[in-house]
Amino acid sequence: MKIEKICILGAGTLGSRVALQSALSGYQVSVYDIHHKALESSKKVMQGIVKQLIGNGSLSQEKANEAMHRLTFTTDPSHAVADADLINESVTEEVNVKEKVWKQFGQLAPSKTIFTTNTSFLLPSMFADISGRPEKFCALHFHDVFYSKVVDIMPHPGTDPNLISLLEVFGKTLRQVPVIVKKENHGYIFNSMLMAFIGAAGKLLTKEVASIEDIDKSWMVNFHMPMGPFGILDSIGLDTAWHVTHKMPDAASQAFAGLLKKYIDAGKLGQKTGEGFYTYPEPAYQKNNFHE
Amino acid sequence: MKIEKICILGAGTLGSRVALQSALSGYQVSVYDIHHKALESSKKVMQGIVKQLIGNGSLSQEKANEAMHRLTFTTDPSHAVADADLINESVTEEVNVKEKVWKQFGQLAPSKTIFTTNTSFLLPSMFADISGRPEKFCALHFHDVFYSKVVDIMPHPGTDPNLISLLEVFGKTLRQVPVIVKKENHGYIFNSMLMAFIGAAGKLLTKEVASIEDIDKSWMVNFHMPMGPFGILDSIGLDTAWHVTHKMPDAASQAFAGLLKKYIDAGKLGQKTGEGFYTYPEPAYQKNNFHE
Ligand SMILES: NC(=O)c1ccc[n+]([C@@H]2O[C@H](COP(=O)([O-])OP(=O)(O)OC[C@H]3O[C@@H](n4cnc5c(N)ncnc54)[C@H](O)[C@@H]3O)[C@@H](O)[C@H]2O)c1
Ligand SMILES: NC(=O)c1ccc[n+]([C@@H]2O[C@H](COP(=O)([O-])OP(=O)(O)OC[C@H]3O[C@@H](n4cnc5c(N)ncnc54)[C@H](O)[C@@H]3O)[C@@H](O)[C@H]2O)c1
Repeated sequence: MKIEKICILGAGTLGSRVALQSALSGYQVSVYDIHHKALESSKKVMQGIVKQLIGNGSLSQEKANEAMHRLTFTTDPSHAVADADLINESVTEEVNVKEKVWKQFGQLAPSKTIFTTNTSFLLPSMFADISGRPEKFCALHFHDVFYSKVVDIMPHPGTDPNLISLLEVFGKTLRQVPVIVKKENHGYIFNSMLMAFIGAAGKLLTKEVASIEDIDKSWMVNFHMPMGPFGILDSIGLDTAWHVTHKMPDAASQAFAGLLKKYIDAGKLGQKTGEGFYTYPEPAYQKNNFHE
Repeated sequence: MKIEKICILGAGTLGSRVALQSALSGYQVSVYDIHHKALESSKKVMQGIVKQLIGNGSLSQEKANEAMHRLTFTTDPSHAVADADLINESVTEEVNVKEKVWKQFGQLAPSKTIFTTNTSFLLPSMFADISGRPEKFCALHFHDVFYSKVVDIMPHPGTDPNLISLLEVFGKTLRQVPVIVKKENHGYIFNSMLMAFIGAAGKLLTKEVASIEDIDKSWMVNFHMPMGPFGILDSIGLDTAWHVTHKMPDAASQAFAGLLKKYIDAGKLGQKTGEGFYTYPEPAYQKNNFHE
């Protein structure tokens, strides 16, 4: 089958990025959200990204205009999914929200529509049955689309195996690098490794082995990277990190979750609130003398 | 006190690099090994690095010649340590070898000499007493000196606190970034995080969640890095990784150690044997189409 029309559910951080990249890649895209306001800010987010891409020379104004014409925004679910070949769902990371959405769109969508979810830490098998078409259901999980261009393809046991290669080809048309998660795994591939290394960093901090700055320096200088684990946590959001960490039963994760909670209770969620482990917009790790 | 003369114990991979960088930074350096052959190959290793540094424009031939004149090589322990202000020990990573060396040099060294060890996974407290001067004993742990320029300073409970700031200044004169490990910790800072993320990669592989290539791609593409965990393992050496992994009691580490052992038994130790998870000199992850 040929994929031509994409329906994006949830016009937040990730939905906006996937929608924009799909339009830039030539697809017709409808963006759906329950909140009209979310659709408005989604347009602004897209305009911001487009400006950046034009600014750094990776996009022309003409191609940007063409892409914007391929996008429609709606709060009407039937309108959103009409004639869609593929849904990529990016609604809030809560089981009951995603269940509701998949039940709703399982009934509304044309029979041809492929169902994919962007969930970060839940599993496709949790929503496959409720959608009414488990064989057409698969996780298709993006990272940040424009800088981190990996897309995880993670089937559940009931996914039609043919869907995997189809999604692989689709991922490449979006200029992403597709990787296959052969079995359901919380955190796919990259997030599993990321959480492990960030957990080790958290343990070094809560056990008072080293300071935030020295832990970040070790990572940044050895790997020649622009951020260390605590800089990365600030960009992910300490609230998001806490949601994952506080569910882990081991003592080290619990201690780190406790520390994250203190920052969160003080309103320090990371970059988005202007302060987390570092203060923004000019965090210490971006200053020239950080390594001295 | 002023540090002028450095004594390097062990002229292997790491000892050669620390010795060369010390000489390039203006110190007088004596390099000691029990094996005459090790000293000969150490000179070749240094010449190779010097050639590279001159080649990429970060060193002049004149400065290189000056540095080479500051280096002496010897199998005579008394000669090696005569008038040394600081010892940096890089002998084989085995408890009994290091014990023997620290007992020997504790007796031979002038009373002013500071004692530092480069051990990767052992602890300074294991050798502080046998050296006879625990207050002057500290871990001073380099990474690869020329690409990864972090130096870990890790005291044991009996280290004189003044030594820490002295070593910090010394580390900077070697153009390294010093970080303080406030409490003894197997793996310092970076290696703790590295082992955690590599352990997570190993688990993804042994649980058959994803392929070697897809795990590496996820890391490389998301973080814009030239290697993923299995490429890194090939460069560390699968034997070194196995030494650390097989001592960890958890089931995931045991499963991964078992897999590493299969590669090792087949002679696949990584880059140094031409094959590990990838084949060298042109591993798949360096090819242009790896991300396609
Ligand atoms: N932010 C990231 O970097 C990232 C990366 C990968 C995956 N994800 C995943 O993508 C999903 C969305 O994350 P996000 O960061 O974009 O969240 P977000 O909070 O920015 O956006 C979620 C959007 O869903 C909308 N929504 C809520 N209920 C809805 C409903 N019933 N119908 C339609 N829309 C509804 C909200 O109004 C909001 O606009 C989550 O599952 C998350 O795990 C996020
Ligand atoms: N290779 C690395 O990347 C690296 C990085 C950081 C720390 N280290 C640590 O540095 C130390 C050395 O590692 P390496 O990789 O250079 O090992 P290596 O095997 O390359 O070198 C060890 C050297 O010690 C010599 N030696 C053995 N017994 C001796 C003795 N009694 N007296 C004097 N010399 C003796 C050997 O002849 C050999 O030349 C280890 O403790 C290791 O954990 C290594």
